[in-house]
Amino acid sequence: MTTTDTGKTLRLASWAQNTAPSPMQDMLALTARPGLISFGLGLPNQELFPREAFAEASADVLRNKPHTLQYGPAGVAHTLKTSIVELMKGRGVTCTEDEIFLTTGAQQAINMLARLLLEPGGQVLTEEITYPGFLQVLEPFAPELLTVPSCPQTGMDVDAVEALLQAGKRPAFIYSITDGHNPLGSSMSREKREKLARLAREYGVPIVEDDPYGFLSYDEVSVPPLKALESEWVFYAGSFSKILAPGVRIGWLIVPEALIQKLSVVKESYDINTANWSQHSVAAYMESGKLAEHLQLLRREYSARRDTMLRAIEAYFPAETRAEKPSNGMFLWVELPDFVDVPTLLRDAVEHKKVAFFPGQAFDTPGNTKGKHGMRLNFSNATHEQIEQGIKGIGELIEAQRSK
Amino acid sequence: MTTTDTGKTLRLASWAQNTAPSPMQDMLALTARPGLISFGLGLPNQELFPREAFAEASADVLRNKPHTLQYGPAGVAHTLKTSIVELMKGRGVTCTEDEIFLTTGAQQAINMLARLLLEPGGQVLTEEITYPGFLQVLEPFAPELLTVPSCPQTGMDVDAVEALLQAGKRPAFIYSITDGHNPLGSSMSREKREKLARLAREYGVPIVEDDPYGFLSYDEVSVPPLKALESEWVFYAGSFSKILAPGVRIGWLIVPEALIQKLSVVKESYDINTANWSQHSVAAYMESGKLAEHLQLLRREYSARRDTMLRAIEAYFPAETRAEKPSNGMFLWVELPDFVDVPTLLRDAVEHKKVAFFPGQAFDTPGNTKGKHGMRLNFSNATHEQIEQGIKGIGELIEAQRSK
Repeated sequence: MTTTDTGKTLRLASWAQNTAPSPMQDMLALTARPGLISFGLGLPNQELFPREAFAEASADVLRNKPHTLQYGPAGVAHTLKTSIVELMKGRGVTCTEDEIFLTTGAQQAINMLARLLLEPGGQVLTEEITYPGFLQVLEPFAPELLTVPSCPQTGMDVDAVEALLQAGKRPAFIYSITDGHNPLGSSMSREKREKLARLAREYGVPIVEDDPYGFLSYDEVSVPPLKALESEWVFYAGSFSKILAPGVRIGWLIVPEALIQKLSVVKESYDINTANWSQHSVAAYMESGKLAEHLQLLRREYSARRDTMLRAIEAYFPAETRAEKPSNGMFLWVELPDFVDVPTLLRDAVEHKKVAFFPGQAFDTPGNTKGKHGMRLNFSNATHEQIEQGIKGIGELIEAQRSK
Repeated sequence: MTTTDTGKTLRLASWAQNTAPSPMQDMLALTARPGLISFGLGLPNQELFPREAFAEASADVLRNKPHTLQYGPAGVAHTLKTSIVELMKGRGVTCTEDEIFLTTGAQQAINMLARLLLEPGGQVLTEEITYPGFLQVLEPFAPELLTVPSCPQTGMDVDAVEALLQAGKRPAFIYSITDGHNPLGSSMSREKREKLARLAREYGVPIVEDDPYGFLSYDEVSVPPLKALESEWVFYAGSFSKILAPGVRIGWLIVPEALIQKLSVVKESYDINTANWSQHSVAAYMESGKLAEHLQLLRREYSARRDTMLRAIEAYFPAETRAEKPSNGMFLWVELPDFVDVPTLLRDAVEHKKVAFFPGQAFDTPGNTKGKHGMRLNFSNATHEQIEQGIKGIGELIEAQRSK
């Protein structure tokens, strides 16, 4: 790609030669346009960050714990681990500090697990429609993807998983966004969770459970994550990005203790250790005991926005539109009628209605087109007024496409 | 490694099955022992962190820039990039903001470049004695290492590099710690820099220049980094860890602009984006203009400690000992007489003298034993009294080994 006057060309690793710029990055640049209503990215609501409490916690840390500006053992802020043990208890997961590894956000957690489990060219089992940031993790491994369909209400098709395992497939791991699926918004039914956990154990295939949205639950009763059902074969990745603030980049893994040392090796090669200062700032915030109340606030605010968006879809989108009400997270998946050309809709929405969303095809695994008529709408980042206005605008553009 | 009651065993990727725990991690645990004098790790001096100025900068950011707790485009805090452009000017490097990519420390910068440039099983050119954290980065690629010797005064044997290239070798990249080499303490001579930069261009082989120590320069005149001599084929990695504080985890890459988009893809798959909050905190500290004075302080303090350590080695180590005076960084490399069993010396030093150092063999590339009689001594982290006491203690143990 770079050619000098000596005529030499820089060789990149083969995976990197044709890798495309990320649609998420493009969207992030797009949504920086002033006045744009964005349902595009999975952004938590900036107005709701517990900024003062966090600033207090962080100032305290710098005042009283100068060692937090130093290097530290990889992934260790014991007080933060203790807070995470407590936090997980509320989800029905029993674990100890020794099974927790702190990471630079959940994305790194997933990346580290892939690094540890996957051979170049190895197999991974995932859904046909899934988080593109996970596919980016896999890209340099050039893996063989085994995919299964998903149900918008009950999540991953676990019978299809079973069929693959029965047919002799043994992927390096199964990737599951169990709650508040990105992009589908679905949460897996209890029955499916139980069966999937059993399959993992029975066939000795680990599950990587990616759970940034599990704590954003809007129903009275929520179903425990896979990790609560199977502690040994489920490797759980959690994150403070959606429940506290993403700018801090702190996440965690819960894995069998035997894996912790292996993770340390990967971690050191990635970024030495998770920022000590950030770890301890989050730890201090957690110790203040304010997270529970903050989570209540987020649940209240986000579920109200979700309901506003569903009402607006009902009012302004064609009757043939299908949209499920998500019990968790920050995404609504909408299936539009077949006549809608979604990429054109996005272009027109940005140009003429100043509103952005993510076209469903961005979430298709390679070779799959199930997301063609879908769109992912984020409901956490916009105001009620913006939601009403934005959905109305998109609805008008859909009607215009119909009449063509 | 994990076997369940169903008799299933967890399969790790093959590189991970036999990977050893990192000696750095072991050392970090060891040096946490109360009362231990550590020359082991490459720790900057905690007492010298500009804690108050940084706390002020960080509090300002949280007060005035709430968006810094949000996600942000990968590697972008424009004001920080502008400060880095200025900082690099002082080293003779001309670059623009568009060539800078912010990372979660220099370790991640190196890791990202390896990811971008190296195929599994590909070739990398490095010195026989080098930074183990770099070898950890390479481990999952199972690369073929091409190694060249190093001179303790003038650095990497560039004639040997030329010979390999002339013989037709085309490594994915050449790895160079040009200033304050870890562990050798050496800084490459101007002549060698010029030749190495020329070779990179001539043969179209990029150089990854790992430069965490370049700003810690103790001579009146310092030689510019490779990046200043060859802007297109040298990819430069810098870090705030040694000049500000490692607990913040902020580093940077300077690469041809054409590579920035590729780096964004890797970055997003690694940890989405470098912590916005930390980036902007460092940016605010840089804007305060206090770094120049802080660097003067570090240079004064660290060079005085280096001199104390050299005097102590002169006084307490055998006459056959060889130690060069490093012009940069935080490490002294010591070649001990052949009769010294270095691992035993370390064990005894920790047990009987409460002092730790890093045995040279920890820095040997696989199959090489040149570090066998070497030791790496860090001089930035201890007080003058500790340096005197620690070196005296090690000297006594060496004499005891001689009389055996």
